Amino acid sequence: MSIIVNDQKLLRFVQEVFQSFGISAEKAFICADNLVLADLRGIPSHGVARLKRYVDGMVNGTILPYAEPVVVREALSTATIDGQAGLGQVIAHFATRMAIAKAKQNGVGVVTVRNSNHYGIAGYYSQMMLEEGLLGLSMTNSAPLVVPTFGVEMIIGTNPISLTAPARRNRPFFLDMATSVVPRGKLEVYERLEKPMPEGWAVDAGGRVTTSAAEVLRNMISRSGGGILPLGGEGELFSGYKGYGMAVLVDILCGVLSGGAYGDMVDSKGPSGENQPAQVAHFFMAINIENFVEMEVFQDKMDDLIDRLKASARAEDASRIFIHGEKEYELYEKHKKEGVPLQEKVYDTLKSIGAQRGVDFGL
Amino acid sequence: MSIIVNDQKLLRFVQEVFQSFGISAEKAFICADNLVLADLRGIPSHGVARLKRYVDGMVNGTILPYAEPVVVREALSTATIDGQAGLGQVIAHFATRMAIAKAKQNGVGVVTVRNSNHYGIAGYYSQMMLEEGLLGLSMTNSAPLVVPTFGVEMIIGTNPISLTAPARRNRPFFLDMATSVVPRGKLEVYERLEKPMPEGWAVDAGGRVTTSAAEVLRNMISRSGGGILPLGGEGELFSGYKGYGMAVLVDILCGVLSGGAYGDMVDSKGPSGENQPAQVAHFFMAINIENFVEMEVFQDKMDDLIDRLKASARAEDASRIFIHGEKEYELYEKHKKEGVPLQEKVYDTLKSIGAQRGVDFGL
Repeated sequence: MSIIVNDQKLLRFVQEVFQSFGISAEKAFICADNLVLADLRGIPSHGVARLKRYVDGMVNGTILPYAEPVVVREALSTATIDGQAGLGQVIAHFATRMAIAKAKQNGVGVVTVRNSNHYGIAGYYSQMMLEEGLLGLSMTNSAPLVVPTFGVEMIIGTNPISLTAPARRNRPFFLDMATSVVPRGKLEVYERLEKPMPEGWAVDAGGRVTTSAAEVLRNMISRSGGGILPLGGEGELFSGYKGYGMAVLVDILCGVLSGGAYGDMVDSKGPSGENQPAQVAHFFMAINIENFVEMEVFQDKMDDLIDRLKASARAEDASRIFIHGEKEYELYEKHKKEGVPLQEKVYDTLKSIGAQRGVDFGL
Repeated sequence: MSIIVNDQKLLRFVQEVFQSFGISAEKAFICADNLVLADLRGIPSHGVARLKRYVDGMVNGTILPYAEPVVVREALSTATIDGQAGLGQVIAHFATRMAIAKAKQNGVGVVTVRNSNHYGIAGYYSQMMLEEGLLGLSMTNSAPLVVPTFGVEMIIGTNPISLTAPARRNRPFFLDMATSVVPRGKLEVYERLEKPMPEGWAVDAGGRVTTSAAEVLRNMISRSGGGILPLGGEGELFSGYKGYGMAVLVDILCGVLSGGAYGDMVDSKGPSGENQPAQVAHFFMAINIENFVEMEVFQDKMDDLIDRLKASARAEDASRIFIHGEKEYELYEKHKKEGVPLQEKVYDTLKSIGAQRGVDFGL
């Protein structure tokens, strides 16, 4: 059962929850806008369902809501930021604005961030760059849930990559993907439905492909071995080492280049389950298209590339070829008009967060 | 049957073949070095086996060996280059040196290239950046062999991505991967052995996963539908749209951003099989690590990340966890010492190229 809520009301409620920690309306808006955008775009796993996680983080001190990001190195086109364990969305928003300013002035802006927290959907920041007419790239490392090829230890994150590029007639290209086969949320869906997972999503404690979502999730919690597979799946037959390589690429650009944390260090739980700063690291790059080619030419070529892909011949049982972001734009428009569907459990959790934080629920 | 040849003798022979077209020893060296490096690193599909392709290109005019790359836009950290249909390796080498110089001076160098030709292994250029102590990224679009998710038309290339990053104790991280499940060469191996392919590499004319490499290769040549699948495989179950998205990302950064060709335009054969400039496009980015973090810290963290991955628990039947580039470095050392193995067919082709171009074979 889903409960449909108005996105603006939802945004206001979530913003007030963040504001109840004493931060500015502007910062609270960034955090709330990021979560609600995920729901609007049809990615509820990264939406307001995660509000509790941020609230808990601020309550238990792994997220420091008053921390201000510090610029530790800076040049015309580059910067490194220390997030000081603050709110991931606020830090990432700050870093993205820097990347945008640098790209507009110098053609390209590259900003890495260490000591941050979970920043929500990667696409929130690439969209900020898109809205400024730039090519936008956003990456983050994340809590270790993925095993390397031939491994059984969750030592890398689902480390997503988002790239946005403007078109003219068509909607922008909007890629926002984890470098693992699936996110953890997909396993949870199969567990709830008690359905066997497809062979190739995850491995058990021995490193064998398993169809039992319940077993994998149990092992993930107890850290007894096994986890989600990188894009390309198990072993080398379908090139799982490529997904593994993309995940390490993200970790190098985020965690290593920023002088921060990487791999299994990125975790809000310590080895004995104690709370600790998650030390999430990000990477942002904005590219000023006009530095390379006239914007009109770029947009025309984007339209043509998109047209060619969409008009190309389809498999016999396929009704449509999609461009990345297309489904999400359609859901966004639908949810803007008809409201955002929230699972009953999520709705109830929001309500109790409202009571806990003294914020009027009103949804 | 393989014939073992000395890499330096092989390099000299290939260089002389390129020089027989009247280009400088320096340019010919770049082309030869690129091909021989692929053989040394154990990627024979991209090695001297492709010499004929370059020779044919220069003979039939799709590759113009005397063309000089032209810088069409430039700023402190960025540039766009028109390759003028010259030798891909020479153009890419020129562009990479620009990216290196810009990164050293301004922290980051981003160079896009249009109107080039096949540039060999992507890793050749990221390695150039690595040798200068930089983070190196190299991408190229390529002839269309890959179908989009739900499609049957080969409209995107295998569009590889290479990233290199220095460590200290450990060998560098050296990713060099196509964004498709497999390269075309793998299908050819299965065809030769008359073995069924794994289910998930390629689709037939109707878009169904097939195990017949012969059928797919036949369809590829006649362009009657079907082709190689993006990383992640068919449909959405194993996230094939992510590999498809990575391929489009590469095409946007290379083909669209440079104002060049993309998708199925990138081809040395026209619709009726006539010769035409392939219009390959590339993207290079060099990052000066010291702009973001002390080199020592970066290298220590790289070593630690690599150690963590390699020391992590293995699947029951696995003997080792690899870091990207590790296998290739080991093969490189072996081939440097023991010589480079060439298939008899490749050896014979080289010999006849020598005769055709008036170059002493001597291998």
